[in-house]
Amino acid sequence: MDASRTSQGQSRFSRRQFTTAATTAATTAATAATVLGPMGAAPAAALPAAPDRKPKSTADWDTCLEVARALLLVDDKDRPLAPAYRKILDDGLPRGGARGAKKVLVIGAGPSGLVAAWLLKRAGHRVTLLEANGNRVGGRIKTFRTGGHERAEQPFADARQYAEAGAMRIPGSHPLVMGLIGQLGLKKRPFYLVDVDGQGKPVNNAWLYVNGIRVRRSEYARSPRKINRSFGVPDAYLDVPSSTILRRALDPVRDEFSTAGPDGKRTDKPMPERVRGWARVIRKYGDWSMYRFLTEEAGFDERTLDLVGTLENLTSRLPLSFVHSFISQSLISPDTEFWELVGGTATLPDALLKKVEDVLRLDRRVTHIEYWHPDRTGETGHVRADGPHVWVDTVSEGRGGKVVREQFTADLAVVTVPFSGLRQVQVAPLMSYGKRRAVTELHYDSATKVLLEFGRRWWEFGEEEWKRELDGIRPGLYEQYRKGKAPDDGSLLGAHPSVPRGRITPAQRAHYAANRWAGRDAPEAARIVGGGSVSDNSNRFMINPSHPVPGSKGGVVLASYSWADDASRWDSHEDDARYPYALRGLQQVYGQRVEVFYTGAGRTQSWLRDPYAYGEASVLLPGQHTELLPSIRAAEGPLRFAGDHTSVKPSWIEGAVESGVRAALEVHLG
Amino acid sequence: MDASRTSQGQSRFSRRQFTTAATTAATTAATAATVLGPMGAAPAAALPAAPDRKPKSTADWDTCLEVARALLLVDDKDRPLAPAYRKILDDGLPRGGARGAKKVLVIGAGPSGLVAAWLLKRAGHRVTLLEANGNRVGGRIKTFRTGGHERAEQPFADARQYAEAGAMRIPGSHPLVMGLIGQLGLKKRPFYLVDVDGQGKPVNNAWLYVNGIRVRRSEYARSPRKINRSFGVPDAYLDVPSSTILRRALDPVRDEFSTAGPDGKRTDKPMPERVRGWARVIRKYGDWSMYRFLTEEAGFDERTLDLVGTLENLTSRLPLSFVHSFISQSLISPDTEFWELVGGTATLPDALLKKVEDVLRLDRRVTHIEYWHPDRTGETGHVRADGPHVWVDTVSEGRGGKVVREQFTADLAVVTVPFSGLRQVQVAPLMSYGKRRAVTELHYDSATKVLLEFGRRWWEFGEEEWKRELDGIRPGLYEQYRKGKAPDDGSLLGAHPSVPRGRITPAQRAHYAANRWAGRDAPEAARIVGGGSVSDNSNRFMINPSHPVPGSKGGVVLASYSWADDASRWDSHEDDARYPYALRGLQQVYGQRVEVFYTGAGRTQSWLRDPYAYGEASVLLPGQHTELLPSIRAAEGPLRFAGDHTSVKPSWIEGAVESGVRAALEVHLG
Repeated sequence: MDASRTSQGQSRFSRRQFTTAATTAATTAATAATVLGPMGAAPAAALPAAPDRKPKSTADWDTCLEVARALLLVDDKDRPLAPAYRKILDDGLPRGGARGAKKVLVIGAGPSGLVAAWLLKRAGHRVTLLEANGNRVGGRIKTFRTGGHERAEQPFADARQYAEAGAMRIPGSHPLVMGLIGQLGLKKRPFYLVDVDGQGKPVNNAWLYVNGIRVRRSEYARSPRKINRSFGVPDAYLDVPSSTILRRALDPVRDEFSTAGPDGKRTDKPMPERVRGWARVIRKYGDWSMYRFLTEEAGFDERTLDLVGTLENLTSRLPLSFVHSFISQSLISPDTEFWELVGGTATLPDALLKKVEDVLRLDRRVTHIEYWHPDRTGETGHVRADGPHVWVDTVSEGRGGKVVREQFTADLAVVTVPFSGLRQVQVAPLMSYGKRRAVTELHYDSATKVLLEFGRRWWEFGEEEWKRELDGIRPGLYEQYRKGKAPDDGSLLGAHPSVPRGRITPAQRAHYAANRWAGRDAPEAARIVGGGSVSDNSNRFMINPSHPVPGSKGGVVLASYSWADDASRWDSHEDDARYPYALRGLQQVYGQRVEVFYTGAGRTQSWLRDPYAYGEASVLLPGQHTELLPSIRAAEGPLRFAGDHTSVKPSWIEGAVESGVRAALEVHLG
Repeated sequence: MDASRTSQGQSRFSRRQFTTAATTAATTAATAATVLGPMGAAPAAALPAAPDRKPKSTADWDTCLEVARALLLVDDKDRPLAPAYRKILDDGLPRGGARGAKKVLVIGAGPSGLVAAWLLKRAGHRVTLLEANGNRVGGRIKTFRTGGHERAEQPFADARQYAEAGAMRIPGSHPLVMGLIGQLGLKKRPFYLVDVDGQGKPVNNAWLYVNGIRVRRSEYARSPRKINRSFGVPDAYLDVPSSTILRRALDPVRDEFSTAGPDGKRTDKPMPERVRGWARVIRKYGDWSMYRFLTEEAGFDERTLDLVGTLENLTSRLPLSFVHSFISQSLISPDTEFWELVGGTATLPDALLKKVEDVLRLDRRVTHIEYWHPDRTGETGHVRADGPHVWVDTVSEGRGGKVVREQFTADLAVVTVPFSGLRQVQVAPLMSYGKRRAVTELHYDSATKVLLEFGRRWWEFGEEEWKRELDGIRPGLYEQYRKGKAPDDGSLLGAHPSVPRGRITPAQRAHYAANRWAGRDAPEAARIVGGGSVSDNSNRFMINPSHPVPGSKGGVVLASYSWADDASRWDSHEDDARYPYALRGLQQVYGQRVEVFYTGAGRTQSWLRDPYAYGEASVLLPGQHTELLPSIRAAEGPLRFAGDHTSVKPSWIEGAVESGVRAALEVHLG
């Protein structure tokens, strides 16, 4: 249905409104200049004149405003764009906007590319969707599972088990992806960030294990002294939980755009002021690292920095942009509900794939992009003023067969490739100066997961279950583990009957034994459902499944989830070498005895080492929000840009969907 | 010979002097407290008391002094330690220091471990040197070569060719490694940082290729306007070369410890003042990133930052410590000579290996370290007050055979494992708080090399040689390439007779063709020997061999050398995927025609992905010099620490050798 006919109670979409909404919809400098702010698509000059800008520490106000608007997804009149974008997802691109069917290439079949291709196809454009992967769409939405559209081999001992390599939790406050889930009929259920009891009520009993001390999160919240003292924080902080210390440090910044009520809950200021508040934050701190903010502005000594960094997951990202981490800490309120998709997050790309299957070309890695630009003389032999305006060369991986090259042409292209990958794609003629710097400099973070499968969900056990299961393996084994006297030669690895015999090779057993946790300390049963523990060991964050897989008594634990330098430590090792370390770290927190349930099956995902993703996400460096963001999404001749890196919500599906809708609009109206 | 008897004209080594020299030699807090500054080895308390430190931005003066002394390698009376260290390398550890032979484990057979093991063995200690690698010593000194002590398979088409995966140039100003090279009888020759003519005279004719503009370095030095304008720098900088802009920005900082003469050459201030000057720099800027310094202190606008960052290799390291990059820019003066080793840098570990072959155990990766510490109660079942004081568990890789575990004991151990690797080693009891934080937080940088072999050294050609060789392949081919009309389908890859037929597979050819440089722009012959080019493409730095390999007309080009985020872009790709990109980048700078000489053989080294190195080197983050360095080299009970990361010369062999001598002294005297 046409959006202009179906809008209910909202102002009708005019063509102008959509152009503004898209922020970067214009195709030529002439039309763009009139409607677009500094983040608009006006193609920058390839050879810029010397700028009259002041030193970086004072980014100009208009740029700060534009970044704030992109962050809050409002148009240049500060009107929210999310309702219009949701309507497009529901009802399609506005009929009024089409200037006839266009031939469009969408490069990259992650969520942004899938959404853009689907919308454009629905609107009648001739779309081809190119994907470098030989067998899979979805990008950084990737579920380790048996089968699926990618026909994956069984990853775990139990064929029913699955686990997330990438996106795993969806904030209920993200309107576009939540809308999409409903629209596509996907089943969702709560994702428990904090562990719950049998009724789904938060109990917060997971472990903190730092400086050799193990304390339940709920105990830490009540009585932080033991942990805080182990970091040697000053007396003033001894009895303050780390999250409170951090909140107090950040609250003065939040006062710019929200107000705290008597109960401490914050309420966003109304719209124009909210945008201006965020713009002030960006102007003041846009060039700062989190390290600088916490030491200089918050006045943290190094021990407090260690405490907050360890428990609140800031240490490894201290040198990165203050604004990035601050957004993560501020846009999602403490009572935000998180959701997961039944069957895995990949059910979302599964559903989107069905919409575009006929236009998808897998195993086509783009190596060259040529485009027509009237002002940029060039070396472009394949494009002309009278068309085609875009030409791309692709190559297949040729795994187990012939390497195929294939060329594609189009009127317009939507490029969703992360800039870390676009760095190796030849684009001719040269793109604008700002775009080239963004492709070169945009920082991509590392993030790495190590997943281990267990034959029983031991983290949900009480002691009585531990006793039953361990003594069932061998009478007295429960007490042996309790006293730290169970053999540590690896012989008990996977000893529980739930683990099929013969799964663990002698070589595996030797590596696990060599790396086993050898402490005599045997903690009490965790008794938690979902949620996760935090440690200062290399595992850092350990997350339990929120729900059982129907019919399976086992489960897959995210034994290690880490970012930046924490992740690099894992990235130095090959996949197989990671599992013994990950089990060791889990044993350190939960006790040696968990080893009996290990099935010998693990999966790991290093996003930086992934040759389709080239990093976890564009987590920006100090100064990059104002220096690079305006150029990131700017059009280059017939090229439009989408992907979560073109939003101010990198790493979130929401940012990808947002950008997919925007880019589809740009193409449709361009 | 005994050092105390052979010292000539220098004060004799007393025991006390060595203890001070070693900075961290003491084994117990009681003796340490009297002789050591804040960087000494006094074991920190496992559970520190709340500190009374001020916020990080004002690191205390004593810590700054200690970092400055470690940097300049002077003792706590500001007397240079290098002469004493050289004497130890020449003559052995002082006889006066031994308290009888000790049983010592040295963990890691990189240069620091090799040096420490050799010195300790010569002094009569019972040494075992453990190395995780199954077939190689040398650490980040690694030569891609045929044979060698590691019995490597032939890496290039020409079996005589070799090239460096790691350390490749040695500053003549590094006294310890230069001394070691002489002592071991290794052959050295100049490494040309700047390209030379046939007589070894610098000509500086390599290319700068940025923003689509190609200019010779010598031309840029004379007339920087064309390049500078392409970045859009302000008028004031239009005619100033990037190195001068950077030098002017850094000179006020250098004034703290050196003075500029009328000719602009800088002279270091005499010693106590030189130390204090560096300490002032560390106090003032220790918490700063290079980004912050260049924007806030030097007042660079973002275009000037782009220019200087691109040409002077600062862009990818902007978020890292100002002090680190400043040291690199300042400790090595512009007229420092660089050297390389004939036969490859690996001839240095080859020679060291001969000294310790009998005590080396390859293929023993340490997974656990237990040590005895009277104050740290613990879970250590394998060590006791009456010895042994150190126990380690190891595991072999089991490639192609059985996985072997083996345990070792000793009185003392020298741990040279990079902290990025030590993060996955279980150490019990807990080490001191400071050490644990250092192991967790110490930042390791990425660095990645891509090397390509060519059948002729085309970069040394003039046009006449190009014409002869190209027309020799096919008459008229020279002109075809000149006019940008040679086929770009990959058919000319390795077409020159110097490339053995059949080396390049059809699949390789398709991948290269898909990624080839497709510009029509055909630059003139480079005509350079050694030196290297700089580009803003993903290759970044391209370095030619300084000398031919005897008997070979070909050569191996370091087609891409990059660091930090620039390196991460390569690290996302598997080895084989990197070569087509690297050739493309080289073609972009030197022209499409270089493809005819490519032999199809490449080698690449990602140090972050290396499971023995775990990163290029400890390139510190803002604040880490004063926060972490004092803890990095502190002893933990019977454990001593060596490796370049324990020096303030990370990534340099000199830092590794320095630390090896220091740690050997600590063990010998401890």
